Amino acid sequence: MWERKDFLDVDSLSKEDIEMILDYSEVLETHSGRGSKLDICRGEILVTAFFEPSTRTEKSFEAAMYVLGGDVLLHHEAGSSRDKGESKLDTLRTLEQYSDIIAIREPEAGMMQRYADELDIPVINAGDGHNQHPTQAILDLFTIKKEIGCLDDLKVIFFGDLKYGRTVHSLIKALRLFGRNQFFGVAPRGLELPQSFAGNDYEEIDMEDVIKIKPDFIYATRIQKERMSLDDRDKYSYEINAAFLCKLPKHTKIMHPLPRVNEINIEVDKDPRFIPFKQVRNGLHTRMALIALLLNHEDELQKISK
Amino acid sequence: MWERKDFLDVDSLSKEDIEMILDYSEVLETHSGRGSKLDICRGEILVTAFFEPSTRTEKSFEAAMYVLGGDVLLHHEAGSSRDKGESKLDTLRTLEQYSDIIAIREPEAGMMQRYADELDIPVINAGDGHNQHPTQAILDLFTIKKEIGCLDDLKVIFFGDLKYGRTVHSLIKALRLFGRNQFFGVAPRGLELPQSFAGNDYEEIDMEDVIKIKPDFIYATRIQKERMSLDDRDKYSYEINAAFLCKLPKHTKIMHPLPRVNEINIEVDKDPRFIPFKQVRNGLHTRMALIALLLNHEDELQKISK
Amino acid sequence: MWERKDFLDVDSLSKEDIEMILDYSEVLETHSGRGSKLDICRGEILVTAFFEPSTRTEKSFEAAMYVLGGDVLLHHEAGSSRDKGESKLDTLRTLEQYSDIIAIREPEAGMMQRYADELDIPVINAGDGHNQHPTQAILDLFTIKKEIGCLDDLKVIFFGDLKYGRTVHSLIKALRLFGRNQFFGVAPRGLELPQSFAGNDYEEIDMEDVIKIKPDFIYATRIQKERMSLDDRDKYSYEINAAFLCKLPKHTKIMHPLPRVNEINIEVDKDPRFIPFKQVRNGLHTRMALIALLLNHEDELQKISK
Repeated sequence: MWERKDFLDVDSLSKEDIEMILDYSEVLETHSGRGSKLDICRGEILVTAFFEPSTRTEKSFEAAMYVLGGDVLLHHEAGSSRDKGESKLDTLRTLEQYSDIIAIREPEAGMMQRYADELDIPVINAGDGHNQHPTQAILDLFTIKKEIGCLDDLKVIFFGDLKYGRTVHSLIKALRLFGRNQFFGVAPRGLELPQSFAGNDYEEIDMEDVIKIKPDFIYATRIQKERMSLDDRDKYSYEINAAFLCKLPKHTKIMHPLPRVNEINIEVDKDPRFIPFKQVRNGLHTRMALIALLLNHEDELQKISK
Repeated sequence: MWERKDFLDVDSLSKEDIEMILDYSEVLETHSGRGSKLDICRGEILVTAFFEPSTRTEKSFEAAMYVLGGDVLLHHEAGSSRDKGESKLDTLRTLEQYSDIIAIREPEAGMMQRYADELDIPVINAGDGHNQHPTQAILDLFTIKKEIGCLDDLKVIFFGDLKYGRTVHSLIKALRLFGRNQFFGVAPRGLELPQSFAGNDYEEIDMEDVIKIKPDFIYATRIQKERMSLDDRDKYSYEINAAFLCKLPKHTKIMHPLPRVNEINIEVDKDPRFIPFKQVRNGLHTRMALIALLLNHEDELQKISK
Repeated sequence: MWERKDFLDVDSLSKEDIEMILDYSEVLETHSGRGSKLDICRGEILVTAFFEPSTRTEKSFEAAMYVLGGDVLLHHEAGSSRDKGESKLDTLRTLEQYSDIIAIREPEAGMMQRYADELDIPVINAGDGHNQHPTQAILDLFTIKKEIGCLDDLKVIFFGDLKYGRTVHSLIKALRLFGRNQFFGVAPRGLELPQSFAGNDYEEIDMEDVIKIKPDFIYATRIQKERMSLDDRDKYSYEINAAFLCKLPKHTKIMHPLPRVNEINIEVDKDPRFIPFKQVRNGLHTRMALIALLLNHEDELQKISK
């Protein structure tokens, strides 16, 4: 049974929590689609409060609530009362009066627990600075499970900014709950995976080792150039292109949380091993499951599961 | 019976009009809540045209329409055709073609009557500059009535900018319809209540008199510092904090239209006498009642009243 | 039967395609209106992706989808992931994962075909730079047909910027499918109708000839002053005002795609021959028909036609 009021991070989730979300995501994927609106959240309102822009995540939550039959209020920073000096917490408390659940994107790491404590309605962390992006981790897990059928005995190589890449941190933590997996990292100097995330199952490698490893997944991330020294920008830029894919095994899937900039050449978009837009789609169903669980609709979810 | 096309100000409302709105607000509050979407406005569209930003008011109208079962189009100034030189009236006439009712926020005082004359659909004044904010007055009345059971024989102290504070003006006017009440004002020099609003029932007092009066309500407002001289900013700044509440009677409620800046210390937020977020919530139900009445759904409202 | 995946331009439409859209627009106009929400698109999601602002067009699509019973995700450039360097195509592919149909406004001419090729869901061109604005052409045709009963044997005078005025180009092309019509143009020097659009049925005239022609429609457009030389701004500015209408025949209707700036004096707004806001309203029903057809709801449309 689902017993959490909020969804703030991946760390505090049990394996059972995650399995429940993934199972219901699959059920919801089967039972939704064109023309089949559900009534699970009819009469309920989701607020998305984004203190930092994000197309992908905001629209994903919005669509998820529509398919569940609910309504959505979008709050953006621009054009709001915060111009008049209101605190974020007052803005959130105001939005709470109109809604049943809230998804918050917040640039400052570590504010989510405070918001969850202060608000009576369920709070979903839709990304808090470089700290966590737990709904991304869930959709990544769902993607991996759908592609390969399981969440253990995997070889996953992470590319890019592994120091600040919160999606990488969350995903590694979550995968560790599901058994033995092998993780590898290819990162520019200074942007390596922090020691706190790097366990026995983690190894730093060079670009040339990637092929030898025959990974199940390459999880590429955007490198924020402003975080690298000028010298390193050229040295550590990487591009996943057709030539690179040519050398990869047929079963290796390329994941990326998007947006991409120059890390992935669009020439690989038609390759079936390139699956970032499948990840996006999976985000819809995992967020549906999450919203439904947090609003205590487990009974309805079980009903449609049969 | 409700017979008005528009809702532009509090002044022109009769006591009966207001009582009708408050009664149906109570009915709607009882019949809405999680999972109980109404069908009263199904197939109807509300447009919110905000030529000035306001989180609280816009989202309140939007949520109200969703709970009533209708749809909402949000129009903001930014990113609109007004960049191409279109008049506000043309923008409103365009939006009218897609909708059944419109809520307008307008920085310039006194334009609402013009809009109401030109548009065929019901117009709701969602705040016109420093002139009126009549839906705020209604939600304030509803809050007072819910907290204390009546709208007469009250002692209300107003704090802050009483010169430009349109919510104060509207509320005083409305309360006068309901019998004998006593009003008091604590305002910085130059920001006192205008003579046109100050009747026999109104008295200017100093901060130190507040406790003696044993008010039923303290209605605090934001002071826009840019309207005070530098000297006065320090002198007339006030803060409602725990020490102040300690001296107040147990029955005195603190109201504030929000957003607050420094007038109210967050240390009082947990005190049950601090009720601004209840006001926000009450705004949802009063706006629902108003929209339903203006769209001529009195029959449906009566039906659910029984 | 409707067989197109996308709606990108007027040129590629057959007479039968257009007649089908206009017929169903009329049906939908009859069957919609206050309180009568349709269920045709229930459970389907429209995304509007506007890389350039437009109140009128965006809100029209949005309202159309609501009346059809569907949901809408609005994507604007501001506050999106494109700040992080994402390509437009990636943004569109992301939005595609959450939706069933997409309406795109794009400042750059000629990108629509590319978008339609890359996306699996139906793409509606909601205006691509100075190239095409095909849903405007359809609503203009619907307006003409409603006002006068047919689409041939008409005299139509176009006013304004005929060089860059995409609505003019699309309308002329579409009307040519329906039989013999006579077109006339009044344009500032340098902004005349391009040769590629000017056939045997087209004549350039001076302002003083307008009255003699006794046109059925005057289609006025906004002149973007930045496109004229300083000398020409005064010389070729025109204003449709009461004095001008006084000289016009009673049956001559004034159309304008809006927004207007100074081309039409508001003193003519109450004249029944001034019909731009009717055009706006007609845009709602034509866009409903288009969305329903592109989502393959011809059966449901036929059902309500009877």
